[in-house]
Amino acid sequence: MANILILGAGVMGSALAVTAARNPANNVSIAGSPLDNEIIASVQNDHWHPTLKVEIANNLSFLTEAELTRNQAQAADIIVIGVSSPGVDWAVNTIIRYNAKPGCIALVTKGLVATENPDSAPLTYADALTSQLDSNLLLGIAGPCIARELALGIPTMVTFSASDIALANRVRTTFESDSYRIAVHPDFVGVEACAALKNFYCIGVSAMLGAWAIEGATAKNPVAALFNQAVLEMAILCRWIRETTDTTALQFNRSGYGDIAFDLPGMGDLHVTVGGGRNSRLGTFLGQGQRLSEIVTGSMKGVTVEGLDTGKQLLTGYKAAVNSEVLCASSLPLTTAILDSIETDCLFELDFTKLPASS
Amino acid sequence: MANILILGAGVMGSALAVTAARNPANNVSIAGSPLDNEIIASVQNDHWHPTLKVEIANNLSFLTEAELTRNQAQAADIIVIGVSSPGVDWAVNTIIRYNAKPGCIALVTKGLVATENPDSAPLTYADALTSQLDSNLLLGIAGPCIARELALGIPTMVTFSASDIALANRVRTTFESDSYRIAVHPDFVGVEACAALKNFYCIGVSAMLGAWAIEGATAKNPVAALFNQAVLEMAILCRWIRETTDTTALQFNRSGYGDIAFDLPGMGDLHVTVGGGRNSRLGTFLGQGQRLSEIVTGSMKGVTVEGLDTGKQLLTGYKAAVNSEVLCASSLPLTTAILDSIETDCLFELDFTKLPASS
Repeated sequence: MANILILGAGVMGSALAVTAARNPANNVSIAGSPLDNEIIASVQNDHWHPTLKVEIANNLSFLTEAELTRNQAQAADIIVIGVSSPGVDWAVNTIIRYNAKPGCIALVTKGLVATENPDSAPLTYADALTSQLDSNLLLGIAGPCIARELALGIPTMVTFSASDIALANRVRTTFESDSYRIAVHPDFVGVEACAALKNFYCIGVSAMLGAWAIEGATAKNPVAALFNQAVLEMAILCRWIRETTDTTALQFNRSGYGDIAFDLPGMGDLHVTVGGGRNSRLGTFLGQGQRLSEIVTGSMKGVTVEGLDTGKQLLTGYKAAVNSEVLCASSLPLTTAILDSIETDCLFELDFTKLPASS
Repeated sequence: MANILILGAGVMGSALAVTAARNPANNVSIAGSPLDNEIIASVQNDHWHPTLKVEIANNLSFLTEAELTRNQAQAADIIVIGVSSPGVDWAVNTIIRYNAKPGCIALVTKGLVATENPDSAPLTYADALTSQLDSNLLLGIAGPCIARELALGIPTMVTFSASDIALANRVRTTFESDSYRIAVHPDFVGVEACAALKNFYCIGVSAMLGAWAIEGATAKNPVAALFNQAVLEMAILCRWIRETTDTTALQFNRSGYGDIAFDLPGMGDLHVTVGGGRNSRLGTFLGQGQRLSEIVTGSMKGVTVEGLDTGKQLLTGYKAAVNSEVLCASSLPLTTAILDSIETDCLFELDFTKLPASS
């Protein structure tokens, strides 16, 4: 029997909790952040999750932050940080405050964090957390997963990644079900980097949804061209974030014939991200000819767009890497176009004559 | 100035002709197959291409088969075989009959051909043609390209591939424009294999469009999971068709970090193929629970489905390769599921508990 504590009662944390609770061998609790009080009240009173829009079974207990006890936190074998990026500090502080000692801390939140050294690549969220949490316990959950589909038992395939592959395999057996399928992968930094970058690239691919139409319908050739380009460039940045461009150290994906970017955390997740969600909406508006400043003060005011935050964290290190020729800008026209529109608030323009990038 | 002769006046041949004719340095003619007489008549009389649904400019001459002269065929610097698979024999015979001596024969048609040896991998169409055409002249055109979008000048990015990369680069300069962007790649067999296999895998991915819905809308997690799985498996079969599974011989894609399957001919083209076209329709019906025999005698009677033909050509060699452990079936659950429904007319069932395939 595994005691699982999910921190954060938003859609992704809750969907994972619902999934884990389907296994009768698991004892699953979810503690909401201070932002989740309405959700917790709805579940406690009506067994209804108002944002996930599913009924919650009795065997899954939803607690407010105040209701979570030290004993419960310390009894957890697995703690899942199930919040979106604004909630990470709360979740980490909860683990530290209660002196919880789980065997695994699983991380759903994805993003990049610029380092204090302006010349270096950003860190993944997971790497940035190792100053506060034991890196041997960290496990990343990444891959194409719309939370509500997961909660409804629609077949979903994701990646669990940890530097210690045995840890990933153990936690996999706790969560896996007939419909929630889990690949494991040891390239923890690569998986986390791709999971963050896919939100960023989603903006650029989705710009094509807004930019090209034929008789009112979205043209498909530019979307496919940039989907492909995005994954190629993701593989390059993923390598850079791992601080190696040595192809002899290629971390293979599960086919054995490509980088982890060409698997669920990159290619697979980008597939589901384009066309749905906030990153895609932002990109579509950019493609329609709006400037970023108009969008974030207008139709998307106050909305957290994780790919935009990822872009801002990339910016300084990327420019330094291009200047020092660690990265080759001509291989990265899509990256450059997205970052330009973030940095200078220019119109998003992908110059197709810069494609194909140098082969 | 390049003399370009396109054989086949269907949508793809015609779209390439329209694109090539935009460059005033090109002299472009198109000769229809015997199946194209209505199209040719419409263009000659009304400057209207009835299936591509675009106007045809005066500088592009459309000829019936009977109107094509030996002199015209022999004057061509580049001949494009622009037909779909039922027209390949006609196109090849036309080249041979007129003793044409172009500097390049470009091939749009994609497919696999089982060899007489039941134990071996199938050949690509291009490889199968080398008994009749000079292999040094062959160039493959592959990648995400809806013909009408190309003809309308919507940005499109494809791959030109030839064993002789200098040939690919020369022909690229003849065709490339601001909106038609061309990557070149030397992995001719790999590019051609992926371009055929993407039709086959489109059937399996599209089955998810028919199989899973939430409140009337297609569920996205299964589509993304199988899109990803399809590209992984494509990379494995692509290797097999190249008759090597030696990863030290990895042919890198343009990022430098993966096989050619993870680029425009595979990943990119599969992106545009799922959700549109005949392969996707067939797959959707399979996913809805129809048997192949019902579909091909019912709603898709008489329709050429290239991915289905590709599957039939794969079948014998695939089974032999699995039996002799050249291929590992547990790594190829999607391939196996599609082939099973083709071979035995069973219901298409992808058992998600077989995923993730062995890592």
